[in-house]
Amino acid sequence: MRYLITFSYDGTNYSGYQIQPNEYSIQEEIEKKLSIINGNNKVKIFSSGRTDKGVHANNAKAHFDLDKEIDLNKFKHSLNSLLNDDIYIKDIKKVNNDFHSRFDIKKKEYIYKINLGDYNPCNRNYVYQYNKELNINNIKEAITYLEGTHNFKAFTKEDEQNDFVRTIYKINITLEKDILTLSFLGNGFLRYMIRNMVGTLINIGENKIKPEDIKQILLSEDRKKAGIKAPACGLYLNNVFYE
Amino acid sequence: MRYLITFSYDGTNYSGYQIQPNEYSIQEEIEKKLSIINGNNKVKIFSSGRTDKGVHANNAKAHFDLDKEIDLNKFKHSLNSLLNDDIYIKDIKKVNNDFHSRFDIKKKEYIYKINLGDYNPCNRNYVYQYNKELNINNIKEAITYLEGTHNFKAFTKEDEQNDFVRTIYKINITLEKDILTLSFLGNGFLRYMIRNMVGTLINIGENKIKPEDIKQILLSEDRKKAGIKAPACGLYLNNVFYE
Repeated sequence: MRYLITFSYDGTNYSGYQIQPNEYSIQEEIEKKLSIINGNNKVKIFSSGRTDKGVHANNAKAHFDLDKEIDLNKFKHSLNSLLNDDIYIKDIKKVNNDFHSRFDIKKKEYIYKINLGDYNPCNRNYVYQYNKELNINNIKEAITYLEGTHNFKAFTKEDEQNDFVRTIYKINITLEKDILTLSFLGNGFLRYMIRNMVGTLINIGENKIKPEDIKQILLSEDRKKAGIKAPACGLYLNNVFYE
Repeated sequence: MRYLITFSYDGTNYSGYQIQPNEYSIQEEIEKKLSIINGNNKVKIFSSGRTDKGVHANNAKAHFDLDKEIDLNKFKHSLNSLLNDDIYIKDIKKVNNDFHSRFDIKKKEYIYKINLGDYNPCNRNYVYQYNKELNINNIKEAITYLEGTHNFKAFTKEDEQNDFVRTIYKINITLEKDILTLSFLGNGFLRYMIRNMVGTLINIGENKIKPEDIKQILLSEDRKKAGIKAPACGLYLNNVFYE
């Protein structure tokens, strides 16, 4: 039987989502606690995607297989009671055996939060503390050049993979009480792509890069032409959409 | 010379505001770092009031004396660079020598945040994770009975002091994306008074206590008649007002 979990986490105290030697990851914590519930038999989870150290998730997805039917509510409750308090299983459901949490993704949504006001100790790990004003109109203009289907090689780690073409369906921007929130809905994102786009948008908001330069940056396929990489703490995997 | 600082803090990792033996407090951290800047000469700070373990502050105030003029901006910058990243000096200014950060207070404002939606790992230390619905209309009615000048003995630690009469000028309630925020503006608050009022309002939102029972609870002057004490993590000292 294949099961799909929707979960949220505070990435502050983990090395990232994916299992790595000598580090403690979100994946390791979930697999460890799942395996306890499964009578100490190892359960491997397949997630909707990795997140880097310090990145959070509001609705991440992962599937796993068990050789038995489970009481979904009871299982969710047991798992949450074993998990560290910075990871939370929001939902668990049965899916078809051919469902795959990563390969079946149609759209993904990330959000990025920036504090333009005073440094706030209470959200220092959850909102990037930029703590200065930004030219929001310029950022709004720049966003329109990022939306659509482009080669995003200039916004990822170089030579990370061969296919750099992605589609961004929509980038939203809202400002609420000094917190600037950018949301990115796309068919997929390359490594560091959101943080590199946000860093470049910050440089545009500082009037260091002109909004229309985005067009040339995309065409250059050159990481050095884009702006800074924004810190991990402001980034959230917000949602994953299947059929 | 007397100086007044406005500061914010994340109270999660401290024993509370006030210095206590064998515990690490906000006050101790600030005094320690102030003393370093003052050439390793002890500086004592006098604050607008204590907060308990796990309680936060957006705009706390404290005064201290130095025997010299300081460059305010430079001093603020130096102090912030020495302080742990969960305490932040927002402002520093010179005040009259007879100014007192506690005795001169006219009004204080606290806010309390409750998450009525799914458990959220990213704000588990900053918003009380109630994670269920509440009857907001009943809470709104109950608030009107708490506003005004009353003997609040039923809402504090028993026998803590003699004068239990306080005035609450205004209680505001807002609901934004599952986060219920209550703000309390008053001429002063007794120990645990906000948390006991919030806990009682939660019991009212659960239909366990009727809104109009607040009147009898106040008259009883009996802590046992009021509701639960809400957890510390949802509480913020939001502001302190002088003349």
